[in-house]
Amino acid sequence: MNKNKAKLLASAALALCFNLPAVAQWGAPSPSTVVNPDNTVTFNFRAPNAKDVKVNAQFAGTKDMQKGENGVWSVTLGPTAPDIYPYCFVVDGVQVADPQCPEWFPNETFKNSLLDMRTAPLIHEVRDVPHGSVDYVDYYSDLMGLYGRLVIYTPPHYDQNPNKKYPVFYLISGTTDTEEVYFKVGKVNFILDNLIAEGAAKEMIVVLPYGNPSLYFPKGTNTFQMGDIFSKTLINEIMPFVEKNYRTINEKDSRAIGGFSRGGNQGLANGLANLDKFSYLCSYSSFTSPQSSPEVYANGADTNSKIKLFWLGVGTDDFLYQNAKEYMDLLDKSGIKNTKEFTTDKHGHTWMNARYFLDKSLRLLFK
Amino acid sequence: MNKNKAKLLASAALALCFNLPAVAQWGAPSPSTVVNPDNTVTFNFRAPNAKDVKVNAQFAGTKDMQKGENGVWSVTLGPTAPDIYPYCFVVDGVQVADPQCPEWFPNETFKNSLLDMRTAPLIHEVRDVPHGSVDYVDYYSDLMGLYGRLVIYTPPHYDQNPNKKYPVFYLISGTTDTEEVYFKVGKVNFILDNLIAEGAAKEMIVVLPYGNPSLYFPKGTNTFQMGDIFSKTLINEIMPFVEKNYRTINEKDSRAIGGFSRGGNQGLANGLANLDKFSYLCSYSSFTSPQSSPEVYANGADTNSKIKLFWLGVGTDDFLYQNAKEYMDLLDKSGIKNTKEFTTDKHGHTWMNARYFLDKSLRLLFK
Repeated sequence: MNKNKAKLLASAALALCFNLPAVAQWGAPSPSTVVNPDNTVTFNFRAPNAKDVKVNAQFAGTKDMQKGENGVWSVTLGPTAPDIYPYCFVVDGVQVADPQCPEWFPNETFKNSLLDMRTAPLIHEVRDVPHGSVDYVDYYSDLMGLYGRLVIYTPPHYDQNPNKKYPVFYLISGTTDTEEVYFKVGKVNFILDNLIAEGAAKEMIVVLPYGNPSLYFPKGTNTFQMGDIFSKTLINEIMPFVEKNYRTINEKDSRAIGGFSRGGNQGLANGLANLDKFSYLCSYSSFTSPQSSPEVYANGADTNSKIKLFWLGVGTDDFLYQNAKEYMDLLDKSGIKNTKEFTTDKHGHTWMNARYFLDKSLRLLFK
Repeated sequence: MNKNKAKLLASAALALCFNLPAVAQWGAPSPSTVVNPDNTVTFNFRAPNAKDVKVNAQFAGTKDMQKGENGVWSVTLGPTAPDIYPYCFVVDGVQVADPQCPEWFPNETFKNSLLDMRTAPLIHEVRDVPHGSVDYVDYYSDLMGLYGRLVIYTPPHYDQNPNKKYPVFYLISGTTDTEEVYFKVGKVNFILDNLIAEGAAKEMIVVLPYGNPSLYFPKGTNTFQMGDIFSKTLINEIMPFVEKNYRTINEKDSRAIGGFSRGGNQGLANGLANLDKFSYLCSYSSFTSPQSSPEVYANGADTNSKIKLFWLGVGTDDFLYQNAKEYMDLLDKSGIKNTKEFTTDKHGHTWMNARYFLDKSLRLLFK
């Protein structure tokens, strides 16, 4: 009997004994969200005193809910493709994360919950493969005069191979998202565990910094100043910290940088400004701008010689699509080789796209 | 110039340049909470359409807020001692976590935010000392037929000493709290970093399991069944996983077990039922019961010979105080040596007590 079969049987037996579902993973869905067999989703929220309750679900937008018995408001939306969808309730104009959902979206200015639809096997799900670890560590930034936090993925068996060194991917959070977002929402750990197990991706360390660290600064601090400070702390503080504390291969062909949205912009800006340090660049639904390193586009052949992969993905329904397309055209015109990926069905500027792009691009790093 | 002085100066210089506060740590307070110089706290929440807005702050209970300009409701509460206090807003009867606060309380059925008052140096704050790492890892439970998550603290320099082995403390979350709670709220990582740096605590690994894993099971699953399953997975699955994947000293005098509230009950129950495996027991604000291991109390001398530390802390204003007191009396009557700690000023059955008890008891482990 193979291991998977045994696990399924054990699971079924337990379900029988204890009337448990044969779930495959920690974190059962919230009772506030019921995924129906046709992949529609019924949302429920109790607010007996409210006059108006809506749900905002990233596959459906903001929709009215209807008041039913015991002050429970409900609506059924979809169907939609299985994925992880951020959502929240809007109670008389106030946004409310689902109190009963343990999975949440780490952000500075809103709190969404995460609906994890598990009606099809997806690349971001935990599987019966060797697993890496996700570490929360704190580095001191002399530049900022404070401790900053990093979330760091190490691949399976990292601790069991104390002499082995690994390439590193610096993966930067987008505007208002914190350093946890590529773990809690992006599921980069499970995506990499699964790709590594398939032999589809190289083993690597992934470093998740806090891209636009506005929580470190007073409200209203100029975002360009913050971006500048982030670039300095990334190159002069975060990279040395990582290379001192983790077993990294410290050469440009073993370093990648990228990110989502503004994090993608920061990834490209820092990567292109430091082509002596990075050979792999990834842009996920990014705001893109050629302004920071004009020499890169002026001399495409030279740029090409320094880059192993220039990967760009964007949804055609993303509000940044036109911007991304113009930037891709500039790369092509400059003779800079790049790999493009477009989606049409991942709901625009969302983490459904960010995860999809991760899956596609992680396969190409360090090869 | 010493390092601390240099850091303060750098911080002050940066604050001057960029008009930044000289904060010492990631995670600035939310703009929704203002700590005043007299240690009162002003809470603000925008809800223009609400009829009634309250704040629930764990140092003050639930209090009405007053509606002011632009639909912003406010109230000033306290003064109170500097600490980390859970809070939420209650908008027309609906509990709302502070959208602008990045620090949150990991719980199954409510979402509170965390007010971190930094007006005095406290043992749970990040300091200029060597830091450990907090790892999120997933273990497969054959018993439950699913992946469970563990949060694991490794002490400073763990990765730099690949041949060194460490004692282990299994620290169990209380009812409805998840495996993240002793990290995100309990700050066990910073408390230990600080105590280790002072030479006040031994270096150790701390394992945070999900004590009463109700999210793994359908709503309404019998809690005693869940407790029983947890005990089995702890001893037969979690401990072997930890001992395989971390460099633990695998003998009873290098193992401690404890927890908060029901987690404390689970810690004592599993510790006392397995005195061949654990020599250190810690109970923090626990519901206590002698029922699971009557032989322990019937033969106090034998029990004493197996235990290096039996530590119990409870607030005299905790709703479980009477229960804890009766249990302590039973220990004394049975001739079982134990160390007691009582508080009067930590607001009852709260994490202000849980952190305080950690600080006191971690100093005594593995000595």
